[in-house]
Amino acid sequence: MKYSGPTIFELGEIEALKRAVAGFKSVSTTLVPSGDDAAVVQVSDGRFVVTTDTMVENHDFRTDLSSGFDLGFKAVASNVADVAAMGARPIALVVAMVVTKNTTQAWLEDFARGLQSAIDELAPACEVVGGDLAAGEQIVIAVSAHGHLEGREPVLRSGAKPGDVLAIAGTLGRAACGLDLLLHDDTTLADSYSEWVGVQLRPKPPISWAISAASSATSMLDVSDGLSLDASRIAKASKVSVILHSQKLQGHEAVLELAAQSLTSRGQRIYSEREWVLHGGEDHSFLATFPADVKLPEGFRQIGEVVEKREHTVYLDTEELIAKGWDSVSS
Amino acid sequence: MKYSGPTIFELGEIEALKRAVAGFKSVSTTLVPSGDDAAVVQVSDGRFVVTTDTMVENHDFRTDLSSGFDLGFKAVASNVADVAAMGARPIALVVAMVVTKNTTQAWLEDFARGLQSAIDELAPACEVVGGDLAAGEQIVIAVSAHGHLEGREPVLRSGAKPGDVLAIAGTLGRAACGLDLLLHDDTTLADSYSEWVGVQLRPKPPISWAISAASSATSMLDVSDGLSLDASRIAKASKVSVILHSQKLQGHEAVLELAAQSLTSRGQRIYSEREWVLHGGEDHSFLATFPADVKLPEGFRQIGEVVEKREHTVYLDTEELIAKGWDSVSS
Repeated sequence: MKYSGPTIFELGEIEALKRAVAGFKSVSTTLVPSGDDAAVVQVSDGRFVVTTDTMVENHDFRTDLSSGFDLGFKAVASNVADVAAMGARPIALVVAMVVTKNTTQAWLEDFARGLQSAIDELAPACEVVGGDLAAGEQIVIAVSAHGHLEGREPVLRSGAKPGDVLAIAGTLGRAACGLDLLLHDDTTLADSYSEWVGVQLRPKPPISWAISAASSATSMLDVSDGLSLDASRIAKASKVSVILHSQKLQGHEAVLELAAQSLTSRGQRIYSEREWVLHGGEDHSFLATFPADVKLPEGFRQIGEVVEKREHTVYLDTEELIAKGWDSVSS
Repeated sequence: MKYSGPTIFELGEIEALKRAVAGFKSVSTTLVPSGDDAAVVQVSDGRFVVTTDTMVENHDFRTDLSSGFDLGFKAVASNVADVAAMGARPIALVVAMVVTKNTTQAWLEDFARGLQSAIDELAPACEVVGGDLAAGEQIVIAVSAHGHLEGREPVLRSGAKPGDVLAIAGTLGRAACGLDLLLHDDTTLADSYSEWVGVQLRPKPPISWAISAASSATSMLDVSDGLSLDASRIAKASKVSVILHSQKLQGHEAVLELAAQSLTSRGQRIYSEREWVLHGGEDHSFLATFPADVKLPEGFRQIGEVVEKREHTVYLDTEELIAKGWDSVSS
């Protein structure tokens, strides 16, 4: 993506930030906003939830494939998903950035618009309450997100019980399909399937469904590294096994079938909708378990069940599924 | 600094982190520790303080001058100083890291020991409750720190009043002197003045003095970018002017005089203890204002006064002082 105009370096940190944050909105839980040594945020039940996630240029994103807006949107989405996966409502973000001496002010302002746009759409009770801008050789985006449990108990990965229903809220495999489309030599493919590319660039986890599910879910996480790997995390933490029902994943696969065929027909590699659904990350959907006698909350659909087995692993129907996914260092 | 053994890349993220965090201690305010989507932290008065700060290799530090331990220590010190400057007690940190494919596990473990050592020494009520490890071309350390106000009102930069006493707790100029010593061609100089080098590598802000001062201070911040620049921040935010009394800074200058002479005699450049004290950053001491009729709290010594002037600027005695300091992007 091309951005023109002065660099952040040319404007200086203070002026650059002043312009970039001009569009940020404030919320009532922010008692002291950014601008002092630290911000102060209200959490009336006396507990806050905190998580952090980092995106690195040329490792987690490429600036020729993602706009500044996309990256701001995704940084918010991936972090507020972690907060919501605990059953908490996202209320505050701090954003630490490394920019290069070539990063333009226009890019930074587009990034800031992406941050606020994701907040508006996904987590309107949230505010950017702090940040830091540093110089380096590549862009790094490190967001910490904070949430309010509003009196609820946090939903951990460790609470799944044998007999529970395994359910998902949100999409599966679309972000991975979108990435394969973006990376393909035939650039017309990304345009043909822009919806899946959109999930990769600007994921939209159903935050409010996750928060509503908190009162009945026995365990929950957001699918950031792929269904097989994230399901195995619930299995290990809860000391249970998880069975995925292939039949219940067919709907997720079916919508990606055409894209897989188009990609496969234009190269040497075979693309598979099943691989995307089982092992693709970054949809940031919510995977949760619920007692079998509970009506599934809004947005959640059953894709499997929890069973008592010693291996604490994941099965696809009757076959053990080798968890594949993203190791952010060695990948 | 040399570290041998396997790289983080060779071990993989999960094993590398498991080994690195093994020495971390837990505290009672951590309701859910790291390991889930997010941590949960207790703040009994229903408010939390949050700040973030980033350190970038070859911009904010060099791995030949700072050990992993030094960097872990400094990352904690600089962040908990911001929390304490609000009058809050540091209780939780999240640490987002970018490491390179050459970063050794030994370095990461030394870094983790530095984190815990700074917590032990400066903020024993604090715990590392989360983190993220990503891969990139240079090391980046982004820490977010959280504090508990324990029922106190936050101490802002904007509360200074004409007539107030300006006071400092901690050292001035030593970290800047230490940096000049480290960067000098004559490497024996750093050994001769290892105490000032130590302040640069492992600053020790007097956290408990800052927290104790919160009940009487009208404004406070930590001196991260230099006395002149940070004092001007109080002046601007409080719409007052600040007068520094040169006589009261003489003690801070006197201890650095020999180092300035040694450096000057070994090169073309003239080093000045006054420049370090007035404009040197990174001591992370606490600059605060107090009503004139209040006894200064433990650790604080008067270095000036607050006056009503339209310019909202800083004076050294009767002369206006041009604020110099660190712009983290353009420097």
